[in-house]
Amino acid sequence: MSASAIEQDAMRRALELARRGPRGLNPQVGAVILSPAGEIIAEGWHRGAGTAHAEVDALSKLPGDQARGATAVVTLEPCNHTGRTGPCAVALIEAGVSRVVYGIDDRGVRSAGGADHLRSAGVSVTGGVLADRVRLLVHDWLVVQRLGRPHISVKWAQSLDGRAAAADGTSQWITGAVARADVHRRRAGADAIVAGTGTVLADDPALTARTADGTLYPHQPVPVILGVRPVPAGAAVRRHPHEALFFDGRDLPALLEDLRVRGIQRVFIEGGPTIASAFIRAGLYDQILAYIAPVLLGGARLALADLGVPTIGAARRLAVASVDTLGDDLLIVATPSEGDL
Amino acid sequence: MSASAIEQDAMRRALELARRGPRGLNPQVGAVILSPAGEIIAEGWHRGAGTAHAEVDALSKLPGDQARGATAVVTLEPCNHTGRTGPCAVALIEAGVSRVVYGIDDRGVRSAGGADHLRSAGVSVTGGVLADRVRLLVHDWLVVQRLGRPHISVKWAQSLDGRAAAADGTSQWITGAVARADVHRRRAGADAIVAGTGTVLADDPALTARTADGTLYPHQPVPVILGVRPVPAGAAVRRHPHEALFFDGRDLPALLEDLRVRGIQRVFIEGGPTIASAFIRAGLYDQILAYIAPVLLGGARLALADLGVPTIGAARRLAVASVDTLGDDLLIVATPSEGDL
Repeated sequence: MSASAIEQDAMRRALELARRGPRGLNPQVGAVILSPAGEIIAEGWHRGAGTAHAEVDALSKLPGDQARGATAVVTLEPCNHTGRTGPCAVALIEAGVSRVVYGIDDRGVRSAGGADHLRSAGVSVTGGVLADRVRLLVHDWLVVQRLGRPHISVKWAQSLDGRAAAADGTSQWITGAVARADVHRRRAGADAIVAGTGTVLADDPALTARTADGTLYPHQPVPVILGVRPVPAGAAVRRHPHEALFFDGRDLPALLEDLRVRGIQRVFIEGGPTIASAFIRAGLYDQILAYIAPVLLGGARLALADLGVPTIGAARRLAVASVDTLGDDLLIVATPSEGDL
Repeated sequence: MSASAIEQDAMRRALELARRGPRGLNPQVGAVILSPAGEIIAEGWHRGAGTAHAEVDALSKLPGDQARGATAVVTLEPCNHTGRTGPCAVALIEAGVSRVVYGIDDRGVRSAGGADHLRSAGVSVTGGVLADRVRLLVHDWLVVQRLGRPHISVKWAQSLDGRAAAADGTSQWITGAVARADVHRRRAGADAIVAGTGTVLADDPALTARTADGTLYPHQPVPVILGVRPVPAGAAVRRHPHEALFFDGRDLPALLEDLRVRGIQRVFIEGGPTIASAFIRAGLYDQILAYIAPVLLGGARLALADLGVPTIGAARRLAVASVDTLGDDLLIVATPSEGDL
């Protein structure tokens, strides 16, 4: 049984509702309850980890047995597990819902199976409705589920010959205004921006995402500082819209798990040669952003340090996704080559 | 007075004759003598430094006063100086030539002024005939005149992060087959290929220009080896079609002058990090060819070493001429940024 036009309209409404919830540890989910006559009798959405799931939120607005014989339209397959909230499949069955329409499958190890549970209870179930639109909405969350950690972009600027600075340490600005604007746009798409204390103490970066005139983008990444040296109270990052998080940076998987639990889905590593090299050495990168200035510098100030590559066969192979000209500079975007990580 | 159709046809013939001469220290030049009736009565071309210039070569085929009242059509402005051969302008005047048509001006400090000399002797002179075609023929020679030395391409292959090899020195093949084929095509367009003894001893390169199946291109660059360490008799470069030239490499301007006098117009520097860095440090480069493999290596084996750049303001600025994808690799072609050298 495919979804009716009314059910598809209801899914569009559920997508709107989903967007009211926060991006974070849990996906954004919306739900609509339709009466047997096809009228919307309740709406709900998920407000973040620890709060009611969208379908339960919607059901809560229907006293008594008003949901009996109704159709629940939910962007994500109702869950089948008891976490901080009860399993939604059970809640729907107990409320007497006779049909469930959903967008994308829940592939979570502990939460999957809701559709089967519903069907075994005699509920009519149709999945995959407007799935592409739902997938787009929760794209980053799905990536985190697949990776088991936030998505990581490692960014650096270098001379053509791989240097981050001249012999005396000067580097501002190795790349030009167009490249810097591109970096800020990408920062604005990240949930966290990671820098080392070395970079913070040397350059005092604000770690905000700004337009060319200095205006803050609406979405700002949380600054994450790695290292053991103290960051002064007067540092620019202390005035960031988000309070900075501090880690010693020795255990990157633990750091990433901490960020994941905080609902951080996209991490932008922009932390100087030591931090960039540490993430690459650990194989913790999904996207490389190498901004290349058309200059030669030579010398010892390298954009990447040791990567633990003993021999050419162990090179960290990349697949170039794009090469773009940004003013005088180039941006090479690459991903780990398949099978390399 | 512009050139007639007959004179333009004669210039086309002179261009054909010019190509019979060697590329070298002197330009390729061809000459045709037309009778007053417009018929070709003599042809000549320059066979290389120390031999007759093209117009004198043509005149030599006309006994007695057969050139009296004739028109000389020459690809290059007749010279005005006495070198190993007498000045062509004088030879033409003495032969009684009444008109001279030529392609491009001779801008040589000592050889220019031939056209003026001819005019002052009452000879009708028209220059600039088929100049673009002549310029194309002697393009590399003109570049050498402008630079005062051979044109220099510095080539290297590197990882995205600027390394030439992994920690253990392995690098074969950092770039792929398509990039290597491109290198060989460019080698075939060079008159000399320069490598250091370090590279020769470590990799034993043939320093030939080969097609993908190993066939030698018709034109082979002369191998030039820089360094003080002896190259074994069994080295591959000893079997090169051209005998290798050896220099200690300490005085690059003297080296380039030696090559220039040998008629070498295009030099391909492919000699490993030490040699490439030495030429860049000395500002001796007209084209940079950076083949970039989409890999990260880290470590200490850099494609370029110290370039004598103390601070960012002294960076060797480049203008990117092109970025091409060669298989999995990228080729960035760049030239010195204007005003930098």
